[in-house]
Amino acid sequence: MTDNNDLAPTDRTALKRIPERGHFDRDTVNAIIDEAMICHVGIVDETGRPVVIPTFHGRDGDDLLIHGSAASRLLRTARNSEVCVTITLIDSLVLARTAFHHSANYRSVVVFGVPEHITDDAEADAALNVLVEALIPGRMAEVRPNTNKEIRATLTLRLPINEASAKIRNGPPVDDEEDMDAEVWAGLLPISTTFGDPVTAADMRHDLPPPPSVVGYGRPS
Amino acid sequence: MTDNNDLAPTDRTALKRIPERGHFDRDTVNAIIDEAMICHVGIVDETGRPVVIPTFHGRDGDDLLIHGSAASRLLRTARNSEVCVTITLIDSLVLARTAFHHSANYRSVVVFGVPEHITDDAEADAALNVLVEALIPGRMAEVRPNTNKEIRATLTLRLPINEASAKIRNGPPVDDEEDMDAEVWAGLLPISTTFGDPVTAADMRHDLPPPPSVVGYGRPS
Repeated sequence: MTDNNDLAPTDRTALKRIPERGHFDRDTVNAIIDEAMICHVGIVDETGRPVVIPTFHGRDGDDLLIHGSAASRLLRTARNSEVCVTITLIDSLVLARTAFHHSANYRSVVVFGVPEHITDDAEADAALNVLVEALIPGRMAEVRPNTNKEIRATLTLRLPINEASAKIRNGPPVDDEEDMDAEVWAGLLPISTTFGDPVTAADMRHDLPPPPSVVGYGRPS
Repeated sequence: MTDNNDLAPTDRTALKRIPERGHFDRDTVNAIIDEAMICHVGIVDETGRPVVIPTFHGRDGDDLLIHGSAASRLLRTARNSEVCVTITLIDSLVLARTAFHHSANYRSVVVFGVPEHITDDAEADAALNVLVEALIPGRMAEVRPNTNKEIRATLTLRLPINEASAKIRNGPPVDDEEDMDAEVWAGLLPISTTFGDPVTAADMRHDLPPPPSVVGYGRPS
């Protein structure tokens, strides 16, 4: 990515309090989006009150994709309405010498905007494939293509990653000088997401081993 | 907990599409809140648009506690305004024989309501201690008490867990009968949050081992 493809800060994405934690280059934003499995989608419901929905996401170039059942009332609300999609990775707990300075090392992204409902069957099919591949790389080569009925039973939304930023804390605990002599352990407790042994479905009608998409599964990082 | 302490479904918490995934007993809701380290807080900003903020949380009986800097514009907005707090745990990826039926086993909670700003110093101090202990059980016994200055530099909010529900999917992949003969592996890929070896801060002035709160750290489950 070139510098001139960076995101422009806006009132909503500029960090007021700790600006050095803000990042507007697309490589940084995209890497967080791609590593995370889920996002939280915020909408304003018909009564003017907030609703936050967890869901899977995928990225198609400079667009974020989300999907759900075509019968989902909340996703139908998100279509053509303002949303805030927040993606959060927690990398470690930060234990300081004082309770006050406890924190976390984290990487988060917010994307603001109005998602477009993908109504074209071919485009929706391609978007669904991106969503499956974002979650389980290689899986689309192992299953049959989507049917038109399946494509139409799914509501797929495309949100341009235009008004967006990343926020990152990455470092040791930071205490005030007057607490530095305290006899209290300080440091980091690393946090990882790990994947266990695959559990084959009991109702399988063929004796098949876990496929490449499952063996050695991991997130991009 | 007794049955008559269960949460009453409302328009916002009753599940319309897959009602069997909805849970309104406090034990189920509380267990998800307690296991999760972070929540996503949805608010409506001064322009009427949604904002979703990741943050730590704690539980004090039937109240959810969240906190942040007293200078946080967004948390100041949350005070005395409608919020939606969503907490999500992903337990496994669900790989079906078809892309369409891919899913996840998950446990999530939503809590709706208007948080109260805790302004009393003693009450705010107790709430902060609950928040630290929710994240790192035993830590408050290892650090000095909060000062009044620290307590006043923190905005602590209390949200009664009244309008709330849990949503749980837990089971094998479910495909349509016409796909059951497909020669495609189906099953679950378990997901866990794991904690690595503690990393002692380089600027420690005493040679101390990681304390009990860090050694053998794990989430309640």
